[in-house]
Amino acid sequence: MKKQDLLQELRNIRSVAMASVDAQGNPKNRIIDVMLADENAIYFCTARGKAFYQELMMKPVIAITGMNASWQMIRLQGEVEHLTKQVMWIDKIFMENPQMKQVYPKDSRYILEAFKVAKGVLEWFDLGKEPINRECLRMEDDVQLLQDGYQIQTNCIGCNKCLSSCPQQCIKQGKPYHIVQSHCLHCGLCYELCPVHAIRKITECA
Amino acid sequence: MKKQDLLQELRNIRSVAMASVDAQGNPKNRIIDVMLADENAIYFCTARGKAFYQELMMKPVIAITGMNASWQMIRLQGEVEHLTKQVMWIDKIFMENPQMKQVYPKDSRYILEAFKVAKGVLEWFDLGKEPINRECLRMEDDVQLLQDGYQIQTNCIGCNKCLSSCPQQCIKQGKPYHIVQSHCLHCGLCYELCPVHAIRKITECA
Repeated sequence: MKKQDLLQELRNIRSVAMASVDAQGNPKNRIIDVMLADENAIYFCTARGKAFYQELMMKPVIAITGMNASWQMIRLQGEVEHLTKQVMWIDKIFMENPQMKQVYPKDSRYILEAFKVAKGVLEWFDLGKEPINRECLRMEDDVQLLQDGYQIQTNCIGCNKCLSSCPQQCIKQGKPYHIVQSHCLHCGLCYELCPVHAIRKITECA
Repeated sequence: MKKQDLLQELRNIRSVAMASVDAQGNPKNRIIDVMLADENAIYFCTARGKAFYQELMMKPVIAITGMNASWQMIRLQGEVEHLTKQVMWIDKIFMENPQMKQVYPKDSRYILEAFKVAKGVLEWFDLGKEPINRECLRMEDDVQLLQDGYQIQTNCIGCNKCLSSCPQQCIKQGKPYHIVQSHCLHCGLCYELCPVHAIRKITECA
């Protein structure tokens, strides 16, 4: 999947979950509409009086997740940018999302403020097919990542324990054995069972 | 809405978003199935090898949100309890959610660990109807809360500014004027416009 397809898919799903962190360091989560998408970013808005707005202004990071009708999930975690030219952005959002006029009629729309997410990590995860499928990329340069996955190192002794226990059968023989990353659940069962600790956890982007 | 109806509705929606906080204090968010619900709690599971598991064990707080087909949202933010008797819980989850056997066949299911959420704040929000409707309650005692809302105080001068600008027309005349809490968006427009600062922000449960 390409970055712009994933961003467009978030816009198609439209009502996605957006998580922020409050002043106490606790997570908050609510359904918010993706109002616009272009090839590099998604855009949303929230009202200045809401806790969500305060949280984003205090700590401009976000974790977004949505699921489409085919049970494919998209995740985006990254930085939030508070846009300049708010009136222009809010008017653009209302033009492309006319249902917003029902909720915020007339000039009440300007209690809303628009934000953009253009930096971070995009993940696509398809649990509905067999084998499961996943992909992860960094938005800034479209580079593929192995976020939160596992890798088998050269001290693998080829004992077959990981291969025979993997719930998704995504481990292949070789020297060393290897994990087909796109089909891995990241469950960690191979990591726990390896008798020589040849499997390491990777976190390419913390 | 009663607590147990909201918990059951989260189970009916099933695939909901669950947000946690990572070691860096950033939010993470992913789609997880609500596996069981009873009158006091919901239950879910995740694999020991996943970042989500590590995050919950480090900081056992969660923010859940889901939306049903009628565009009604349910939110639950609270404490996560790591269950004892894991084998019993995982077997119960697989009994009531047989599709899980496809993803974690045979004994691979025991890489999963079960969690419960029984303490926190439950919120129900219906944006699809006019007027919009919301309710919020504390799980421990089923008491209604006015979380993150606004209240008009006795220094209100009855100037009508809030009433005439409210996007949801949920402010009523009186001494002082008052906000019909169940129809309030929490947008904060009245709060910004009040010439005598008679409106205060409430956060009953921070």
